Amino acid sequence: MKVSKLKSLLIRIFKKKGLTHKDALISTKALINAEMVGAYGHGLSRLKMYCDRISKKVINPKPKIKIKKISSSISHIDADDSIGFVAAEIAIKKAIDNAKKTGIALVAVKNSGHYGLSGYYAEQAVKKNMIAIIYTNAPPAVAPQGALKSLFGTNPICFGCPTNSKIPFILDTSISMINRGKIRVAARNNQKIPEGVALDKYGKPTVDPIKALEGVQLPIAGYRGSGLAWMVDILSGVLTGGNHAGKVKDPFDDFSGPQNIGHLFIVFKTNLFVNNFNERISDNIRIIKNLPKIKGIKNIFYPGENKFYRHKKNDKKNIIIKDNIMNDLKKLSENFQ
Amino acid sequence: MKVSKLKSLLIRIFKKKGLTHKDALISTKALINAEMVGAYGHGLSRLKMYCDRISKKVINPKPKIKIKKISSSISHIDADDSIGFVAAEIAIKKAIDNAKKTGIALVAVKNSGHYGLSGYYAEQAVKKNMIAIIYTNAPPAVAPQGALKSLFGTNPICFGCPTNSKIPFILDTSISMINRGKIRVAARNNQKIPEGVALDKYGKPTVDPIKALEGVQLPIAGYRGSGLAWMVDILSGVLTGGNHAGKVKDPFDDFSGPQNIGHLFIVFKTNLFVNNFNERISDNIRIIKNLPKIKGIKNIFYPGENKFYRHKKNDKKNIIIKDNIMNDLKKLSENFQ
Repeated sequence: MKVSKLKSLLIRIFKKKGLTHKDALISTKALINAEMVGAYGHGLSRLKMYCDRISKKVINPKPKIKIKKISSSISHIDADDSIGFVAAEIAIKKAIDNAKKTGIALVAVKNSGHYGLSGYYAEQAVKKNMIAIIYTNAPPAVAPQGALKSLFGTNPICFGCPTNSKIPFILDTSISMINRGKIRVAARNNQKIPEGVALDKYGKPTVDPIKALEGVQLPIAGYRGSGLAWMVDILSGVLTGGNHAGKVKDPFDDFSGPQNIGHLFIVFKTNLFVNNFNERISDNIRIIKNLPKIKGIKNIFYPGENKFYRHKKNDKKNIIIKDNIMNDLKKLSENFQ
Repeated sequence: MKVSKLKSLLIRIFKKKGLTHKDALISTKALINAEMVGAYGHGLSRLKMYCDRISKKVINPKPKIKIKKISSSISHIDADDSIGFVAAEIAIKKAIDNAKKTGIALVAVKNSGHYGLSGYYAEQAVKKNMIAIIYTNAPPAVAPQGALKSLFGTNPICFGCPTNSKIPFILDTSISMINRGKIRVAARNNQKIPEGVALDKYGKPTVDPIKALEGVQLPIAGYRGSGLAWMVDILSGVLTGGNHAGKVKDPFDDFSGPQNIGHLFIVFKTNLFVNNFNERISDNIRIIKNLPKIKGIKNIFYPGENKFYRHKKNDKKNIIIKDNIMNDLKKLSENFQ
């Protein structure tokens, strides 16, 4: 499907669900961006879920989002159970504005939902020549070190930074070794999962995807990743007024109430301490890229480069839509005039 | 040796090297704390190195440290090649002061040196009921993903947070799978090193410590850890005016100039967005600690708990000093009256 056609289709779907044109456009752009960079788990595969949550009144299509000024640098946003995209869009724009005025911004969001890729918002700050650090929590997916039950979300750590080139440095890394979708695919295809990514229900390491689905996923780097996930839960949940400690509902399975996800955005200018940041970051990247490489490795890429290239490549193509998602689109656009 | 005796001995050694009483006390306290929490790699094993660097004029014992006010929240510190402990002590105190006034502080340091444990400084903010995020870079120890040469330091990520109890939440995690000291010990004892922590000089995974010493150490979690290490290098080096991209000198081996390490301190209040942070963090920790546990695991500890208990246990004991370090102490205290 052509991108332009998909775009107008998604906008119509979201508007039919009650979103304003502006909010429908924000949500559409975020979904299409995820498809373009190849992050399909954050793209069209979630469209039906968002629409279902609006129908079941656990996403508010017409939220009254309140922005509370704490100081010139600090803002607190109550997203009123909006679709996450809209809350995050308002938050990153507010953070950029605050940082423009004072050098640094801290913006917390509560009563939000799944907003897709953190990197998508970091990019907006980077385009304004700023650095962004973004945290969000998510429904339980990963067991704390020593626990036999998932509690932490995939709790990404996101960092964006200008590079003095058109390709931003965007680190957007989950703290989960593997995502649940990949385990489900392995189970369907009778494949093993890698060692060290999951435990069975007794807490023993397993490479059997069926046993892993009954057990728990592991964080990256053992106790270190468990600690990082805990940090993200505190920063995005405990601090902001959002849900935390495993209380964020699974958006696909649990329609008993809104998610109340929390996000935290820290944004600051690059030229606070040096007047030649662009030169310094160019040097940094050039030196690292020029290191001797392991046999078979042609290039050292910085975080975000691959996504940028994928986006560029996909820009020229039509978006390929899988059958099951095409079915979603057809059902959701029934009764359009 | 009794702690009180060690303390006065270290103060005398540092003063003999030219530090003021105040700076000698700061440095002594940081070293003894590292011993107390069992972080021996940041304790007395480094004393001779610090003294050697002062003798060779690559640490400045009488630095003229300049604190530049960028805004009420933001400060830039030029540490004038001071011993890292002194620069970091001034920086965290400034960050706490700024955050008290405005809610959030961003303090960058350049021309500093190795400061020991990041967590030691985070604790100071936590004692004032604040959250701290701290980054520092370090001499090359870890290869970027795909590279056959070390460039990133062990670049710790540090996060401290009050817990409504006397035991602070202090995550202080290196992004290196293993530290070089442990590989050296394995080589001496003819032991293998674990799989997945190092490559040989051809870039092949190895469990042979001698081959690993000729090769490179790996970051935690592959490309994810490599990205996190790169993030820390940008935040603490590129942004602050410190060295970066592998230019921080090894303090033990390279006396050709000061290290010019950079640090970044982000500190903020816990009650900016909620008025019941203490209750929320207590709930968070209680829920996670009460999760069902893997067989053989009695307790789920949050980051910092184990260090706290070790410190408490060691408080009541004399400090055990290894022979080689006792020799250092004797040599460094020769000619004392």
